[in-house]
Amino acid sequence: MSKTAVIAFGGNALLRSGQRGTYKEQIANVQSTCESIIGLIEQGYNIIIGHGNGPQVGNVMLQHEITSRVTDVMAMPLDFCVSETQGSIGYLIEQGLRNTLLRHKIKRNVIGIITQVLVDKNDKMFLNPTKPVGPYYKKKQMNAFLEDNPGTPFKEDPKGNGWRRVVASPQPLKVMNVELVESLAKSGNIVITVGGGGIPVVENEQGELIGIEAVIDKDLASALTAVDIHADEFYILTDVPKVYINFRQPNEKALDVITIKEAEKYLEEHQFAEGSMAPKVRAAIYFVKNGGKECIITEAGQLGNPNCGTRIVK
Amino acid sequence: MSKTAVIAFGGNALLRSGQRGTYKEQIANVQSTCESIIGLIEQGYNIIIGHGNGPQVGNVMLQHEITSRVTDVMAMPLDFCVSETQGSIGYLIEQGLRNTLLRHKIKRNVIGIITQVLVDKNDKMFLNPTKPVGPYYKKKQMNAFLEDNPGTPFKEDPKGNGWRRVVASPQPLKVMNVELVESLAKSGNIVITVGGGGIPVVENEQGELIGIEAVIDKDLASALTAVDIHADEFYILTDVPKVYINFRQPNEKALDVITIKEAEKYLEEHQFAEGSMAPKVRAAIYFVKNGGKECIITEAGQLGNPNCGTRIVK
Repeated sequence: MSKTAVIAFGGNALLRSGQRGTYKEQIANVQSTCESIIGLIEQGYNIIIGHGNGPQVGNVMLQHEITSRVTDVMAMPLDFCVSETQGSIGYLIEQGLRNTLLRHKIKRNVIGIITQVLVDKNDKMFLNPTKPVGPYYKKKQMNAFLEDNPGTPFKEDPKGNGWRRVVASPQPLKVMNVELVESLAKSGNIVITVGGGGIPVVENEQGELIGIEAVIDKDLASALTAVDIHADEFYILTDVPKVYINFRQPNEKALDVITIKEAEKYLEEHQFAEGSMAPKVRAAIYFVKNGGKECIITEAGQLGNPNCGTRIVK
Repeated sequence: MSKTAVIAFGGNALLRSGQRGTYKEQIANVQSTCESIIGLIEQGYNIIIGHGNGPQVGNVMLQHEITSRVTDVMAMPLDFCVSETQGSIGYLIEQGLRNTLLRHKIKRNVIGIITQVLVDKNDKMFLNPTKPVGPYYKKKQMNAFLEDNPGTPFKEDPKGNGWRRVVASPQPLKVMNVELVESLAKSGNIVITVGGGGIPVVENEQGELIGIEAVIDKDLASALTAVDIHADEFYILTDVPKVYINFRQPNEKALDVITIKEAEKYLEEHQFAEGSMAPKVRAAIYFVKNGGKECIITEAGQLGNPNCGTRIVK
């Protein structure tokens, strides 16, 4: 039986900083990202791809906000914006993978799924939203927004760029359709899911799903998926080849293999930047603590190299 | 074995004219649309939902265009915009269906799929694009757009609202993942697919998929899906209870059952409005000509009523 791997891409696999973000650039970026996982595919792995949407959802929120100021088209809340990015990023990755498979003469199917992820409406993160999202607002613009959406939390940018909305980043509890993701993937289909960490939803008293303005960490949502589908391996792709301690210090040290105990110690020591490497290491710990064998954090170009990345093991 | 039905919703099932288009309105609209198909679900049908995206993709194109004028965020082409609407509409329909099923205490799963639809790059419709899409442009705005996107076809609005892009509406040839849609639906999952008629793609010389700016008729894409998955019934939902000849004339007549031969005769007589009832009747004919038993055109509220709508039969 084939092994199953979950691979988490960053949203910047498509929209890269330093580029203009043209359609052509995005198509080229997705091709090179897809090319990087072909080694795993050639080894016969079943593959599930989770992906981020940081730059994309920022653009969508900006488009909603700016257009709502000058036309009748209303700005939609964050869950809706996340769902839009699942459509566009899922599309580009599916197409890129199909074309990459064709060039390598590999017959595998690819399917992109729109995915809601359940969070707890009483998650304590909702008490103190800290994750900045969307565009910067001038004070007057913020006040206009607050008139339509009273109580929305904002934080002033310390660099003086204005005000920005902040939302909570609650723990993902349940990936909708994860059983179908598992059966599709284990029949050989490459499945794209939990885009942007999933569309965040809560349950009301009746158990009905309701979209909520929050950001679910995409590495954590991918880790939850990896646990639920009993993945053999979990890859988190980033823009450095390995995880480092004393990063960018004279005594910087690349890590080859660390146990979850070591990983937790380094986290306590604040060795990993929040919003960057720390959540990746936490997602790796989550996977290994919940039955996963190993999680590999590495850059896309290193995939397939047997000693690639930093392996987090039990 | 359960019967399988494909149901095509209009994009206005969510964004209705005469409303402001708030998130709350869209949630309420999707709930009432989902409620209307519960009769078929209770009868045990396997269900596949295709949906339009007319008002939604217009909004997305407007958001892209306006934001690109005042920020660095680039406007993306139409295939990308369609993929965004697949994400958002698929999300809202999936959530609406899940909540409707819960209220009716029915255990069925719902899955929304991002769907590319292949068209022929040599489709003759590309020679004469006529389908207006996106916002109206003033002449100066159009010229700015043409500088970045030379050769894009525009047409002047006869009512003097300015200029609008026109794209081709080519024939759908192949719905990606239609085999998975069939197996998912026939295992009891309610599947949402071919949103907005599908993300239009063509094949280049190497057989690689490339997004293209076009609009695929959602009823025709749903009909192709219905044929390919061997659906027993195909429902096209619209805002009138039946198909009429001499529509809104003193001798208006509602049609209960018509053969495809009669339907073709009425089409020749221009009994059905282009861009409205005519494409629905053509999609019905396509389904019945290619092995389908009957297609029913009706309004959502009539579903489940055994004599609902107009039945197009062989």
